[in-house]
Amino acid sequence: MRDERLGKLARLLVEYSIGAGEGDQVVVSGGVAAEPLIKEVYRRLLGVGAVPIPQVALPGVQEIFFQHAKDHHYEKTPPVLRALYEGADAFISIMAPKNTKALAAVDPKKQQALGKRDKALQEIVLGKDRWALTLFPTDALAQESEMSLEGYEEFVFAAMALDEDDPVRYWREKAGEQGRLIERLEKADEIRMTGPGTDLTLSVKGRKFLNGDGKKNMPCGEVFTGPVEDSAEGEVFFGIPVAVGGREVSGVRLRFEGGKVVESSAEKGQEYLNAMLDADEGSRYLGELGIGTNYGIPRATKNILFDEKLGGTVHLAVGRSYAETGGTNDSSVHWDLICDLREGGELYADGELLQKSGEFLGYDFG
Amino acid sequence: MRDERLGKLARLLVEYSIGAGEGDQVVVSGGVAAEPLIKEVYRRLLGVGAVPIPQVALPGVQEIFFQHAKDHHYEKTPPVLRALYEGADAFISIMAPKNTKALAAVDPKKQQALGKRDKALQEIVLGKDRWALTLFPTDALAQESEMSLEGYEEFVFAAMALDEDDPVRYWREKAGEQGRLIERLEKADEIRMTGPGTDLTLSVKGRKFLNGDGKKNMPCGEVFTGPVEDSAEGEVFFGIPVAVGGREVSGVRLRFEGGKVVESSAEKGQEYLNAMLDADEGSRYLGELGIGTNYGIPRATKNILFDEKLGGTVHLAVGRSYAETGGTNDSSVHWDLICDLREGGELYADGELLQKSGEFLGYDFG
Repeated sequence: MRDERLGKLARLLVEYSIGAGEGDQVVVSGGVAAEPLIKEVYRRLLGVGAVPIPQVALPGVQEIFFQHAKDHHYEKTPPVLRALYEGADAFISIMAPKNTKALAAVDPKKQQALGKRDKALQEIVLGKDRWALTLFPTDALAQESEMSLEGYEEFVFAAMALDEDDPVRYWREKAGEQGRLIERLEKADEIRMTGPGTDLTLSVKGRKFLNGDGKKNMPCGEVFTGPVEDSAEGEVFFGIPVAVGGREVSGVRLRFEGGKVVESSAEKGQEYLNAMLDADEGSRYLGELGIGTNYGIPRATKNILFDEKLGGTVHLAVGRSYAETGGTNDSSVHWDLICDLREGGELYADGELLQKSGEFLGYDFG
Repeated sequence: MRDERLGKLARLLVEYSIGAGEGDQVVVSGGVAAEPLIKEVYRRLLGVGAVPIPQVALPGVQEIFFQHAKDHHYEKTPPVLRALYEGADAFISIMAPKNTKALAAVDPKKQQALGKRDKALQEIVLGKDRWALTLFPTDALAQESEMSLEGYEEFVFAAMALDEDDPVRYWREKAGEQGRLIERLEKADEIRMTGPGTDLTLSVKGRKFLNGDGKKNMPCGEVFTGPVEDSAEGEVFFGIPVAVGGREVSGVRLRFEGGKVVESSAEKGQEYLNAMLDADEGSRYLGELGIGTNYGIPRATKNILFDEKLGGTVHLAVGRSYAETGGTNDSSVHWDLICDLREGGELYADGELLQKSGEFLGYDFG
């Protein structure tokens, strides 16, 4: 049984995202539950002459690692894995959890230690710049999103524009329109957003906006930059709940002065919020301002890959900025929080209204 | 849910077979269906401080390869895979097919080409000499064996002696008894076997017998050598059907003169038999004489990993011999055929009766 839309997704990943060609060794990693998509990607890679290297993760193995690993297991990435990453030309990663809460009982310190151990792998992937991250709908993700599996499949494939005859053209066109928006934003000094509980200004002067065109993330649809570090003034209410590290944080309010968070509260997850903000020097400053442009996503589902792209929302990340944007904030934290502007919100660039109640004025994102 | 016997099997593989220790990078390869055993092995490896590197195969991916691979895909093992094998310290491979006939429609030439491409990988594994091959019971294997899954599990675990309190000790003791048998066999010049349709003599003068002690194969229980290449005289009937390359061959009769097959017939699979014997110079000469010692296997199941170990059978392979035995026959073929001595058969070493109707005289293999 093959869903035509998976074939389209495979084409997006293989041809549009990483531009695979003859002889390219492409690591395709994902959970067992992603089997149908892994196979489509495998087939498509062979078709363009590339060499697929599947790395399939069994559910439950990570839990066993955290239960039984010894200290030295956290010290060094296995050299053969490192060699695999170093030798590969491109990477396609597919999220497909069988249980989104499988790591709920794991000591976060262990998770951090493993993340730190394998930071070098991540840097190899980012350094090669040919990578794509996507998601395959599973019952676990559907459940987390409070949908049936079938309903969630429709949701996911719509967000990726897989019902379009030619999704590659769709994403190219979206990237073109985002380019127009970026031109406007890069001319601006000051961005202001207002809405229920929100009135925040910040400077993007001299900063570069990046075009989330669907090559690195699928789905995509966002433009983002690193705001000037000491510029944020005012307050913002993040109305969209986020799942992070196996828990939920919602109803976050932050007040900024001179770019720094000086007041904070959360309806749920206050402790986690405090821990994040107090992590280090940079964790009370913004590392990212992102503007979602994906109107194929009807609502938030506690999955950051989708929620931050939601048309009519703006996301701000406390912590580390992306160097390519010109942002200079350094931190061990990069945590995205999402502000919903769809109910009476407004977004301005140097006083010009760009978006009202979540709808762009003069830009067409379908 | 954890079956205690899988824990014992994992211990056999990790501690007894490959002797894994701190820092050893161990490639654990197997089909998705082997998930419970892969996890037990993963846990045990972490427990001894080793570094498990799971390589999980999705069912159906091989078929996609044979359908869509281009010529250049058959030319070179992907360098990152080669690096993975070169960097690893030991290998545990678990057969667990979801469909034993999945490759039935594949052109055997393609299978041969892939085998040839990846011969270097096999040589790396053999060269490191720390490898183990085993099997995890699946419905497909049970079906091929004409048993229920539960019945087949009992069959498999009994053959591996996993109901013993200490299977490691069991296999050490079996290896000891096999060592006694080898001492006798290595003193002999001539081996003779007789039975219905069988009266064959061959020389093992100066050849070394290897002790199948359960380290490389689980289950195990055999001693084997490479007979003197020009010595086989007489005829032999192989009463046990073999599954090979997705088909069945049974009722094979061979007549030898001066070591060479001069007459051959098969009740089923005659064409395949002819093709094998005509493959090259060495494919009409014997590369192996093996004697099964596993009496925990009650009957043949068309699976060579089990059938060749069956107590009361002798197997002969046409084609390539194992260099460690002193055998010198070279061929692209190494094909095991199994002769059943349990119904009135006899096995002699220099005229001394060693086995009658499948039962050893003076050797205790339980």
